[in-house]
Amino acid sequence: MNLNDGVVRSPNASPLRILLGIPEAEFDAFFPADTLGALSGLGQITIAEPAALQSPGAFEAAAGEAEVAITAWGFPRLDAERLAMAPKLRCVLHAASSVHFLVSDDFWDAGIPISQSGAAMAPAVAELSLVFTLALLRRLELMDVRLRSGATWDEARNVRRAREISGARIGVVGASRTGRRYVEACLALGADVSIYDPYLTADDVLAARSTTLDSLLAGSDVVAIHAPDTPETRGLIGKQQLALLKDGAAFVNTARSTIVDMAALFAEVSSGRIDAALDVFDDEPLPADDPWRGLPNALLTPHIAGATEDSRRRAGLIVVDELRRFLAGQPLEHALTRTDLERMG
Amino acid sequence: MNLNDGVVRSPNASPLRILLGIPEAEFDAFFPADTLGALSGLGQITIAEPAALQSPGAFEAAAGEAEVAITAWGFPRLDAERLAMAPKLRCVLHAASSVHFLVSDDFWDAGIPISQSGAAMAPAVAELSLVFTLALLRRLELMDVRLRSGATWDEARNVRRAREISGARIGVVGASRTGRRYVEACLALGADVSIYDPYLTADDVLAARSTTLDSLLAGSDVVAIHAPDTPETRGLIGKQQLALLKDGAAFVNTARSTIVDMAALFAEVSSGRIDAALDVFDDEPLPADDPWRGLPNALLTPHIAGATEDSRRRAGLIVVDELRRFLAGQPLEHALTRTDLERMG
Repeated sequence: MNLNDGVVRSPNASPLRILLGIPEAEFDAFFPADTLGALSGLGQITIAEPAALQSPGAFEAAAGEAEVAITAWGFPRLDAERLAMAPKLRCVLHAASSVHFLVSDDFWDAGIPISQSGAAMAPAVAELSLVFTLALLRRLELMDVRLRSGATWDEARNVRRAREISGARIGVVGASRTGRRYVEACLALGADVSIYDPYLTADDVLAARSTTLDSLLAGSDVVAIHAPDTPETRGLIGKQQLALLKDGAAFVNTARSTIVDMAALFAEVSSGRIDAALDVFDDEPLPADDPWRGLPNALLTPHIAGATEDSRRRAGLIVVDELRRFLAGQPLEHALTRTDLERMG
Repeated sequence: MNLNDGVVRSPNASPLRILLGIPEAEFDAFFPADTLGALSGLGQITIAEPAALQSPGAFEAAAGEAEVAITAWGFPRLDAERLAMAPKLRCVLHAASSVHFLVSDDFWDAGIPISQSGAAMAPAVAELSLVFTLALLRRLELMDVRLRSGATWDEARNVRRAREISGARIGVVGASRTGRRYVEACLALGADVSIYDPYLTADDVLAARSTTLDSLLAGSDVVAIHAPDTPETRGLIGKQQLALLKDGAAFVNTARSTIVDMAALFAEVSSGRIDAALDVFDDEPLPADDPWRGLPNALLTPHIAGATEDSRRRAGLIVVDELRRFLAGQPLEHALTRTDLERMG
């Protein structure tokens, strides 16, 4: 943080009051000097650690005058009690993606506009899914783990099935924003891509690649999950669906674990029949003794798909742009409605 | 191998005699049924395990009538003694890349044409370099190793410096065939690429990206080695050059370890100042207790950059196409001369 007392005075006589609730550990990533400077030109900023705002007293002190709240994970849920403590609140700009934890029926009923910054993260998530895909096709994880665990050179080399992405059959579950970015990158590298998404319309640029879930699972070298977490997608990939995967297939999930029966996936990966690369798990934080941590053919990351220096910077810029639109009376570009949320996850 | 006795009779009255010396473990990858069928239409094939041909008696028995030798690693060096045992030899088609081990002054003096199949491997090598690049930019290795070694979720997440390839500054040492493929892939994914190659000419499509070695090292987020192993490149990246790398830079080598001072690189990576992904080492096979195997920020593979199912299949097809050209009296497309070899490594 570059600010001495957490408050920047704007030259306005009656400046807009902005509550900026971004975790300190990531504050500079979201709001480097130039972005923070742009924001401070739009109003008077109060910076607060979101975790500290869980205390009602601290929340009331920080939010009592706030007209705009800029939020991230850890920010308190905006229920009736909190909303009553922030009576002047008229806009919420979420610098991260999922707002499920943040909003409530009372919030929607209050009619306060909210936007989120998932667009900033989509390239980062899509790119992690791409590197997972390339790594599994080449079986990097297995070779690297073997070299680390004292295997002989020949044991480490004897992985078989090393494949290039050019010509590989890649099945994408979910034509989401991240799914589409991922598809673009795979196509740029020569892959043969198919997609399952029940909401894909006939005039969609991806429509020609559309297929059923079963044929996607049975026909792909790599299956990548890019569907949202909704009641409809929960458990979409169960034991029966995983059994359709070819021997030697690779399974990539940078979306949400709820879409997949993780016990069934573990059985398939631990048997060695398929490989997996996962950023998301049922138990997060993943316990130290979780059996996923011991599989030589499972590449793991700790739910960081959207978290890059680049995505944080983009998210800060999105927030500043949204605030400019709000102040100009224009619609928010990344606005969310209650209906959107049910659909997007 | 699909052949009972290792010999296929062609219908020709006096068929061309082809010695096919491919390691049995990879035979089907290089010569799947359709490729082997095409080859058998061109002559009479004798299949031999190259390692077994190290015995002079076995070599003489297998090569005595051979007009064409199809070779891979493990094939005996073609020196005066071996050439005398294969007096009818008039063409060598190497199904792999480096022929240093295979040729001799006597071989070049004999004027026997030789080609190699490095073109088949270039896409595979370039792609490994790409996935190394993406993995290091995101610091996958560090997170995965931490999760495997019982670190807490937060310890695994706290890697910093996770970057996307879009906008990353990537420096490529060597505008080789693999280097050029790598550049194409990096550009397709939005990277900012610069190149050091003293042989790059002003009319080269890459000339505008050309820079000095020092400025490339100092200005890149990722440095990828794609130079050949020649007297000129040996030790090109020494301690002084490595010191020019930015804190947090990533070093990728899928070419040859001789280009790099590996002790100096180890010092930089083990200090945590930079990360590395390596397919090549001074000691191959890498000893079980080699200290490289213990670094959490070094992603390792056992010299398999060129070895994919796809590259093996392409190499077999190149060999068949070269043999067709040879029989038609056309120049070999992948011919090597003594001068080429000194340059290409």
